[in-house]
Amino acid sequence: MTKNIKISLDCMGGDKAPQIVVEGANIAASKRSDIFFNFFGDKDKIENIARNCRHLQNRYKIFHTNESISPEEKPSVALRRGKKSSMRLAIDSVKNKESDVVISAGNTGALMAMSKIVLRPLESINRPAIITAIPNKKGTATALLDMGANVECSPDVLLQFAIMGHAFAKVALKIENPTIGLLNIGSEDEKGHEELKIAANLLRNSDLNSSFYGYVEGDDITKGTVDVVVTDGFTGNIALKSIEGSAKLVSQIIKNGFSSSFAAKIGYLFAASAIKRAAKSIDPRMHNGAMLIGLNGISVKSHGSTDAIGFASAIKVAISLVTKDINNQILEELKTAEESISKANISISSEKIEE
Amino acid sequence: MTKNIKISLDCMGGDKAPQIVVEGANIAASKRSDIFFNFFGDKDKIENIARNCRHLQNRYKIFHTNESISPEEKPSVALRRGKKSSMRLAIDSVKNKESDVVISAGNTGALMAMSKIVLRPLESINRPAIITAIPNKKGTATALLDMGANVECSPDVLLQFAIMGHAFAKVALKIENPTIGLLNIGSEDEKGHEELKIAANLLRNSDLNSSFYGYVEGDDITKGTVDVVVTDGFTGNIALKSIEGSAKLVSQIIKNGFSSSFAAKIGYLFAASAIKRAAKSIDPRMHNGAMLIGLNGISVKSHGSTDAIGFASAIKVAISLVTKDINNQILEELKTAEESISKANISISSEKIEE
Repeated sequence: MTKNIKISLDCMGGDKAPQIVVEGANIAASKRSDIFFNFFGDKDKIENIARNCRHLQNRYKIFHTNESISPEEKPSVALRRGKKSSMRLAIDSVKNKESDVVISAGNTGALMAMSKIVLRPLESINRPAIITAIPNKKGTATALLDMGANVECSPDVLLQFAIMGHAFAKVALKIENPTIGLLNIGSEDEKGHEELKIAANLLRNSDLNSSFYGYVEGDDITKGTVDVVVTDGFTGNIALKSIEGSAKLVSQIIKNGFSSSFAAKIGYLFAASAIKRAAKSIDPRMHNGAMLIGLNGISVKSHGSTDAIGFASAIKVAISLVTKDINNQILEELKTAEESISKANISISSEKIEE
Repeated sequence: MTKNIKISLDCMGGDKAPQIVVEGANIAASKRSDIFFNFFGDKDKIENIARNCRHLQNRYKIFHTNESISPEEKPSVALRRGKKSSMRLAIDSVKNKESDVVISAGNTGALMAMSKIVLRPLESINRPAIITAIPNKKGTATALLDMGANVECSPDVLLQFAIMGHAFAKVALKIENPTIGLLNIGSEDEKGHEELKIAANLLRNSDLNSSFYGYVEGDDITKGTVDVVVTDGFTGNIALKSIEGSAKLVSQIIKNGFSSSFAAKIGYLFAASAIKRAAKSIDPRMHNGAMLIGLNGISVKSHGSTDAIGFASAIKVAISLVTKDINNQILEELKTAEESISKANISISSEKIEE
């Protein structure tokens, strides 16, 4: 008998918790028999939903709490006052080896702060980051990090992001030899910040050199020019939200077009199902599930406004990170990279994580 | 008789010059009788096209050169070696008061470097910037600056961007009381770089305070939350290209959908014209024409791969900047802002432009 994967779920995070969390778990449970859920939140509310979920029967346990972290809570306050919150208890469950992975659709800053304190960064990782997959023109997805955990990043931190992104693309996106690009405002060597030039140099001198494409620009993320786009958390967050906003704008315009005339409405009847099928590859729900990468334990962030189908996607990501042992993958790549860099005699600063 | 607006055109910049430049001029000329063109480039090639353009007859003059600036040329090299290039001569024409505005679809870095050297920055402007209009969900456009001229920006430079953007939104976008947002990764006060916090403080203490919305995020650009989004050139360039890339991805997906089945193709026949009409508001050609803002003279950048219709849009932008006297507008707003800030006893550093 194979061991079950135990998934810890924060049932008080996100716009529609616990509903979409428990129903998302039900969808995931319908697809694999080797998963078990630890739910953290309001026992009665969770039980009311779970008892109607056919695939969850005998496959969950509820840990009651009525404390939650609000979306506006500052991470520092969440850390201090949220020790009995559903989010914190769900993370603690990974720390205590009662779960293999934690998923929350709640406050991102608080999730990162708590995950860092409870799980601790992986050995020799300076700054854990947030990584997510963005659909691209090739019909696959591009991994982008950091999405906002670290506003400013030194070159050695960017190098570690590249290493972690490379491992993530292999494991979560199933790409055999992922390519890596550094986000910049031009492909020429002299463009951009000084930190980027040093990071590019570090990458060229590491064993990731053969995977390193060079600089990429904002539109390369959705073009799929490379499999992993590396940038600081400020730029990454703005790129991600710019992409989301633009996609919503264009979708809205097309919808307006379809409802703007009688002929267009008829056209919609004929074309709707084909367009919906085509648009599935860019459905944000299918790409839900960002990883808080670089921690001694697996912590996954779901979009706060997703539905049960979207939450099930985040669970799927979490499962692949557990089964493929992402953190071991990262540690191995990190070791090789450090060796190759020290051979090339380029120092990695020993900057340590702030808390 | 009103004075003609004289427009200087670089006929060797962009993918399809001189064709789209001259034909774009013809489109613009068909709409107003008070414009005259100075063409810079290969005399024979320009003449061959212009002679077939009905609306251009007796409304242009050609200044021959066969030197051009390549798209890959470094700005420093273009400055040194490009003194007889079509781009440089077209800019010189504004300096010599033979033209009221210059437009080029060529190398952006070279255009900025040459415009700065030839036209000089406006009095007390530290760093000229690139500003462009991006379509938004409201059906209007959001002005975004800087698009890439200044990789790093101090808080007082961001304040000047806000002032210039405010004037641009009034003049080019015809918005009476434009609102201003600072691009950040969250709306909370403690988010983002230190420079942003100081810039926000400067804005709140200036007479632009009533127009200052606060921080905005990446998706607010296409939402149209504010009329002017202010950021450094690194972030602005990445946001713009992320938006462009995402819009292309979604458009491609919809196109794929329409051609993916027989029913969808029929649907297309019914819906195509309505969708094209709806999509006109986000047609990049309709929003072509970025301004190099903060210079003692008006310099406009067209997208390098646009067509004649797109180039005509850039000419339209140029005309509104000339007729509404954008630079005088900026100088006035700058004066008032400086007075109000000095009253509030917040210093603007006297950092001077690098060359």
